[in-house]
Amino acid sequence: MMENNPICQLFGISYPIIQAGMVWASGWRLAAAVSEAGGLGIIGAGSMHPETLLKHIRKYKVKTAKPFAVNLPLLYPEMHAMIEIIKAENVPIVFTSAGNPAQYTRVLQQQGCQVVHVVSSVKFAQKAVDAGVNAIVAEGFEAGGHNGREETTTLALLPLVRQAIHIPLIAAGGIASGASMLAAFAIGADAVQIGSRFVASIEASCHQAFKEAVVSSKEGDTKLTLKELTPVRLLKNPFYDQIQTCYKEQAQPQEALAKLLGKGRAKKGMFEGDLKEGELEIGQVAAMIDQILPAKDIVNEMLSGYNKTLDKLKAMGAFKQ
Amino acid sequence: MMENNPICQLFGISYPIIQAGMVWASGWRLAAAVSEAGGLGIIGAGSMHPETLLKHIRKYKVKTAKPFAVNLPLLYPEMHAMIEIIKAENVPIVFTSAGNPAQYTRVLQQQGCQVVHVVSSVKFAQKAVDAGVNAIVAEGFEAGGHNGREETTTLALLPLVRQAIHIPLIAAGGIASGASMLAAFAIGADAVQIGSRFVASIEASCHQAFKEAVVSSKEGDTKLTLKELTPVRLLKNPFYDQIQTCYKEQAQPQEALAKLLGKGRAKKGMFEGDLKEGELEIGQVAAMIDQILPAKDIVNEMLSGYNKTLDKLKAMGAFKQ
Repeated sequence: MMENNPICQLFGISYPIIQAGMVWASGWRLAAAVSEAGGLGIIGAGSMHPETLLKHIRKYKVKTAKPFAVNLPLLYPEMHAMIEIIKAENVPIVFTSAGNPAQYTRVLQQQGCQVVHVVSSVKFAQKAVDAGVNAIVAEGFEAGGHNGREETTTLALLPLVRQAIHIPLIAAGGIASGASMLAAFAIGADAVQIGSRFVASIEASCHQAFKEAVVSSKEGDTKLTLKELTPVRLLKNPFYDQIQTCYKEQAQPQEALAKLLGKGRAKKGMFEGDLKEGELEIGQVAAMIDQILPAKDIVNEMLSGYNKTLDKLKAMGAFKQ
Repeated sequence: MMENNPICQLFGISYPIIQAGMVWASGWRLAAAVSEAGGLGIIGAGSMHPETLLKHIRKYKVKTAKPFAVNLPLLYPEMHAMIEIIKAENVPIVFTSAGNPAQYTRVLQQQGCQVVHVVSSVKFAQKAVDAGVNAIVAEGFEAGGHNGREETTTLALLPLVRQAIHIPLIAAGGIASGASMLAAFAIGADAVQIGSRFVASIEASCHQAFKEAVVSSKEGDTKLTLKELTPVRLLKNPFYDQIQTCYKEQAQPQEALAKLLGKGRAKKGMFEGDLKEGELEIGQVAAMIDQILPAKDIVNEMLSGYNKTLDKLKAMGAFKQ
């Protein structure tokens, strides 16, 4: 299968499974494990200083020669330093997010990078195509971490983006199994980007306590919040409750929220494992995850789940009209 | 196909496509057209007086002898009268929603009805199974009209409900094409319940202006609101804007909201076609709908879209591991 898959061809990978770049979770170990398993590993630069990113890229290269990507939020404060590193290290693929793709797409492409931009609406997908990106990630409302204002779910978003653009398309949000990977392919995806499932992997660099919280979470335990600032999906915990208290008590909660948030909450929660006072970014699929596994096993489970689902659908057959 | 489909067997229908019961849109004409096309038509009793329901059932029966269902919100004020009609008219299937299924499931089953309950979370799916229902509709966040507090999307909800229960399962929310129907089957659905797509049908009893508003709507044009009262997904319009103004201006907006809402807004919007002052309930898939079609054509398009998607996936093949 997949000899003709446009994402496998674009990136030079075996399987159309992308491990999402995630703050405080996706360093070189996770990225290398996913790429070694035949997918595409992404080093998440959003939570790294430039020199940290450089170290991760170099460690990745010692571990494996497989293609990899760096995820770069376009609102990052030290973009110039990041781009210099990407250039010097010949990073083959950059996933950009959270900003205007018109600003850096050509710059990165001139350095030989493939550029993929993450969007959460049809409108921004079109803007990214106009900016000349090589592929799009369309991310639904159910995804963890930062998210769009439109709240369009993966099932509703993918077919609309597929209709609107004509470049390779990666689905993200709500996908943690081979069955949901097949569902994404059915509605127009060429590949899937998987975040939450890889948080609960041996190689993820986030804290063990956070991984265990993901495993033990249930349906309804995450919520999209901070919608008028930067919408983000969090696992509910005392920190989440404090945010909701700000909203309940104040008609203009911006100042109180800024004060509450301005304390390295994401690092505290996901990297240091403070499940009470930290910010825990995770998708709705956390409820499906019941085991911390090596990344290679996660990739293999997805592939065999996909095949099993395809067999089931083939056995059910087509409709006679 | 589908000889062994549990929903086709349970209801005695040809195709596992259920037309959702919808206030002000799904009377006998739409239900009969869908059932005649091989799916299951539902008369939406939520917006009907008991005597209106009786008329719709009788007109349905004149039109076709095919099985049909009545959708009954369990918080309906005249439940006794409704149940008497369902009994007297030998309604074969009742879809219940918005209330506790423990209260009426056995009562309805003793009158020979199959009972299906609509849920939006794993917890309520389990409660419905405990109440003895014959099947479950699991409805995701992207669905139109009234919705759950958990905000779990169809892609995230279905696999979890499938894992938790062992009775026939119908997916709802985000499904308006054969491709998304196949996606729902991939993640565990035995059938799909389609609302929004049938709003834009010739036979739907809602106002032409509402149907046209659905056709011309774009991605991002709906929003789930009134979350602390009864969450409902609406097409954004001046009435929706008035609701948001209540929220912005008042930390305790309940009283202002109650005043704003208490004016037959749903009838005004969907039945009378007042697109400014009325409440317009529709799902995120409205953005995919670009034509008002006969219900039969909608069913046939879904079936051929399903087959085409299955062919595409078969041609892509399985993964070699």
